[in-house]
Amino acid sequence: MTQQLPVAPSGGTLRPLGIDEVRITGGYWGDRQRVNAEATIGHCLHWLEELGWVANFDRVAEGGPFERAGREFSDSEIYKLAEAMAWEIGRSGSVELEKEFAALTERIGAAQRPDGYLNTMFDNPGQRPRYSDLEWGHELYCYGHLIQAAVARLRTRGEDAFVRIARRVADHVCETFGPGGIESICGHAEIEVALAELARATGERRYLDQAKLFIDRHGEHKLGKGGFGGVYYQDDVPIRRAEVLRGHAVRALYLSAGAVDVAVDTDDSELLEAIRGQWDRTVARRTHITGGMGSQYEDEAFGGDWALPPDRAYSESCAGIAAVMTAWRLLLATGESHYADMIERITWNVLAGAVAPDGKSFFYANPLHQRTADEPPPEGELSHRDRGGQRAAWFDVSCCPTNLARTFASIAAYVATADDTGLQIHQYTPGRIATELPGGPIEVAVETDYPDGGSITVRVDRSEGGRWTLGLRVPAWAEGARLTGPDGASREVGPGRAEIAHDFAAGDTVRLDLPIAPRWTVPDPRIDAVRDCAAVERGPLVLCAESVDLPVGADLAGLTVDTGRLPIGADGKVTVAARLHQRVDEWPYGASPAPDKDVTEAELDLIPFHLRATRGPAAMRVWLPAD
Amino acid sequence: MTQQLPVAPSGGTLRPLGIDEVRITGGYWGDRQRVNAEATIGHCLHWLEELGWVANFDRVAEGGPFERAGREFSDSEIYKLAEAMAWEIGRSGSVELEKEFAALTERIGAAQRPDGYLNTMFDNPGQRPRYSDLEWGHELYCYGHLIQAAVARLRTRGEDAFVRIARRVADHVCETFGPGGIESICGHAEIEVALAELARATGERRYLDQAKLFIDRHGEHKLGKGGFGGVYYQDDVPIRRAEVLRGHAVRALYLSAGAVDVAVDTDDSELLEAIRGQWDRTVARRTHITGGMGSQYEDEAFGGDWALPPDRAYSESCAGIAAVMTAWRLLLATGESHYADMIERITWNVLAGAVAPDGKSFFYANPLHQRTADEPPPEGELSHRDRGGQRAAWFDVSCCPTNLARTFASIAAYVATADDTGLQIHQYTPGRIATELPGGPIEVAVETDYPDGGSITVRVDRSEGGRWTLGLRVPAWAEGARLTGPDGASREVGPGRAEIAHDFAAGDTVRLDLPIAPRWTVPDPRIDAVRDCAAVERGPLVLCAESVDLPVGADLAGLTVDTGRLPIGADGKVTVAARLHQRVDEWPYGASPAPDKDVTEAELDLIPFHLRATRGPAAMRVWLPAD
Repeated sequence: MTQQLPVAPSGGTLRPLGIDEVRITGGYWGDRQRVNAEATIGHCLHWLEELGWVANFDRVAEGGPFERAGREFSDSEIYKLAEAMAWEIGRSGSVELEKEFAALTERIGAAQRPDGYLNTMFDNPGQRPRYSDLEWGHELYCYGHLIQAAVARLRTRGEDAFVRIARRVADHVCETFGPGGIESICGHAEIEVALAELARATGERRYLDQAKLFIDRHGEHKLGKGGFGGVYYQDDVPIRRAEVLRGHAVRALYLSAGAVDVAVDTDDSELLEAIRGQWDRTVARRTHITGGMGSQYEDEAFGGDWALPPDRAYSESCAGIAAVMTAWRLLLATGESHYADMIERITWNVLAGAVAPDGKSFFYANPLHQRTADEPPPEGELSHRDRGGQRAAWFDVSCCPTNLARTFASIAAYVATADDTGLQIHQYTPGRIATELPGGPIEVAVETDYPDGGSITVRVDRSEGGRWTLGLRVPAWAEGARLTGPDGASREVGPGRAEIAHDFAAGDTVRLDLPIAPRWTVPDPRIDAVRDCAAVERGPLVLCAESVDLPVGADLAGLTVDTGRLPIGADGKVTVAARLHQRVDEWPYGASPAPDKDVTEAELDLIPFHLRATRGPAAMRVWLPAD
Repeated sequence: MTQQLPVAPSGGTLRPLGIDEVRITGGYWGDRQRVNAEATIGHCLHWLEELGWVANFDRVAEGGPFERAGREFSDSEIYKLAEAMAWEIGRSGSVELEKEFAALTERIGAAQRPDGYLNTMFDNPGQRPRYSDLEWGHELYCYGHLIQAAVARLRTRGEDAFVRIARRVADHVCETFGPGGIESICGHAEIEVALAELARATGERRYLDQAKLFIDRHGEHKLGKGGFGGVYYQDDVPIRRAEVLRGHAVRALYLSAGAVDVAVDTDDSELLEAIRGQWDRTVARRTHITGGMGSQYEDEAFGGDWALPPDRAYSESCAGIAAVMTAWRLLLATGESHYADMIERITWNVLAGAVAPDGKSFFYANPLHQRTADEPPPEGELSHRDRGGQRAAWFDVSCCPTNLARTFASIAAYVATADDTGLQIHQYTPGRIATELPGGPIEVAVETDYPDGGSITVRVDRSEGGRWTLGLRVPAWAEGARLTGPDGASREVGPGRAEIAHDFAAGDTVRLDLPIAPRWTVPDPRIDAVRDCAAVERGPLVLCAESVDLPVGADLAGLTVDTGRLPIGADGKVTVAARLHQRVDEWPYGASPAPDKDVTEAELDLIPFHLRATRGPAAMRVWLPAD
């Protein structure tokens, strides 16, 4: 059986289940999948055509000089969209999408050179020579996305014209950048994780070897320093010697994901431990409460330790996706549940909100504090990436929409795993899971309205071959969680994985009850930017306050909250006791704070962060200053 | 008498005294003037030659196509240095510098076109046409600096070849951009303030009219939006309608300075009030405790209200200079002492530290928090502007060194003013002030070791013509200041201007005693980034903690201070009671902060912020978290 999944390690602890094994049948993520299929994919294709980014391939095929549309990495948007389409075709079998995929394949293929080279920005008449600008040219980066799309295709439909294009590209890369070839790397990591997976999907070892070569070349100063230094593209320190993720966040995390793949498939525990250590320190010191990574706007980079400003939390959507990719690989490699905790956190608090409910506008940056209620960007206009507080239809640099589309189309592949002992469920959504355990096939249904409710019921619909273990992730925040077995006996379970070994039969149910009452969360005192603030979390959701919920005339800048009173959760609403201060405007530093002109008390409603900016222009903040 | 000063309004409240009237004779600023003359000017000239930025003029004069060195605004560095040289020649009469100035003049003049056009980036063979890129071309910006240098020259040496170059440029600008000409503005304000002053220095009204035209065209969307939008160059809202300074900080402040000049010289109280309002709100909501303005690295811009992160406080040195320029003009226009307070704050806490004690390295950005102890940039290498925590010899964009040089060379011009009633001293430095009051000439000597000490003595050395008023600025922080008159009687004086009207005779002394015991200062609670922190100020100085003063192994990130105990100032040292926490590294958000692994108590020495990074690599912070 070909597994329909983006990551299939040759070793490690847990075996991931593909989208053929996990079907999301409803709930929030069921809805997101539907909107992704019905709206987002078409929206992306429309913009890619409108802006001429697909037509670039046609111009290359025609052979003459042409005025190229888009930035140097625009080819990759077409490939990421192709990956989204491939997963969606695999999931839904859409005939119409299959036709569009075939048409796209033909246009891409027509631009490929006989030797496998494929790019619309370089090496065509009037353009710079191929590989003449590895720092910023993004040729290998684009290949990486092409190859990931091909892996999706190979695993959902098998070998086809698209896959053949990607294999020719991969062969060309190995010839050109392999031993004796160009001894360098791409300024944007991505080829590594793609080649490693292509090796798995095709059984071709040399793709893995090439991925390893690229990984190991990082930190050998192969690239020019550019404006941001070698750290920007992780060319500052060899990956095995680095202590923390740094530089451009998406680059750092794609590279990490590829490094885990290479480590697992080459049994390289030194490399795996290096990435684990970097991840741990990054999570401890360089990650926002939303799971968002990368706090600098200027170079889209990780800031230093504890540099986590909520208002300038860049927290790029693509960095969220890349962090999920890395965490998922570390979960598979180690089986450690905290990686799945982080996937849940990022998925709900970075990715979910990055796409509008209608699937047609997006956040590129995901700051945790928006001081002003700005109008949305004009319709039909390209937006700059940090367009204050409102989602935009498309961007000048538009990496996020297609990246979100491919992730949402394959989101079911991040829900569950299996091993020799049984099944592990990591993310909770209504769905059906069917797989083969050593003892025989099993099938379960998951029923839940999580995270609105905290109860998750797993009903066994099929179980042949006796005893196996059901593992259910208990998030680190879920103190007092309870697990109820098929026999009705219930016990408290601590954070990590709650396991129940049983001779399951059809009709058996296991229930996990997670405490989802809203709770106050405070930051490490070393995070200067949110000192003396608290946030409210409910289950996996980070909540926020929006100015549209304030009394008329009140300003979110004057908000303080009473953290001595628990947030109240009732009727689907979460409320905190707040004060709204009106303060004097003068030189703002002195022996004591300027006295309030006025203070009013208020009950303030909070909403999930991912639902921000869905009710018109609004100021917003996650971190609430304590009284 | 020609006054030797950069700003000579035709109206307003106070008459500024020039560098011929105010001589700084010692103290900190005496030393800075000396180092500026002996080291900084030569250092700048060296780099400008080394990098070929002066040679660009020679290439233009030769007439053929050439490979131009430097960024589009590099001509302005030569002009700012010329201004520094002009003031320094005026101050010291240096014959050697006069020779260098003449040589530079010749090379600049050789590049000027018969019609007055002068630029090394445009309109020469192989280059784009003149004025084809007003957004980024900086042609008028460069002219502005040329003209300001010419004003310095005109007022210190009179008409010469340099002045004639600038007048031809100014005439060309009026012809080209005047009524019926190109109805646009430059993407970087500067021409406005320069033309307004040239009108004063030459008596040519049309330069003032042209300045007014440029001012009023801002906000009429004359420019393309560019990556950062029209707000970046203040082309978003007409200047009379804007409520706060916004966009690129240096641009906003140069424009404001020019607007005050135009308002004063055209009796335009609406315009003056608009700038006063924008300044007030900017000071209340968008200014760091150092007086630093502009908190965004990405676009070197003002952030939103209350967006004042200490670690990403961009606080560009040039923005400090531009803020002094604006505040000085507002002080002259209104006589209000708080503008001089801000000049003092910026001068001591942004400008003073922006130049190394040896005058040969500079800060471009002046953040208030440096988390890591980074090595200085390699010698002889161009630095990026935000080179972590250490001064650099030169930058890729190197606007600050020459700007600091011209400001330090003319710093005496910001010390004192006169009006019909007498003399006002705004900044305290050892020096001699001689001017003409309506009643006759006066001369005073100022003796002080301020801000090390708080005592300022003004000794009258000459006073002919009877009674006049001596005004001494009492800074807003100076609660309990005392003024002692010539009769020995002493009284407490509140913030503002302490005045003493007297029939002064030679030998009379007036003494102002300012309380300079170190004090805790807390921020407005709306400044999220420094909530629950305090800073120590002593007199006009903001202090900071540096990691080199911590016990070995301690980390500035673990610092808290006891704000309940007053900082101790003794033996030239300031000390606070501190705790150094060692904390656990794990997911940094939870129901309560992770407990300390270890805490040690310490007495922590603080140093003036302007002396940071003079003792080797160091982490540093101004805002100290309260226990």
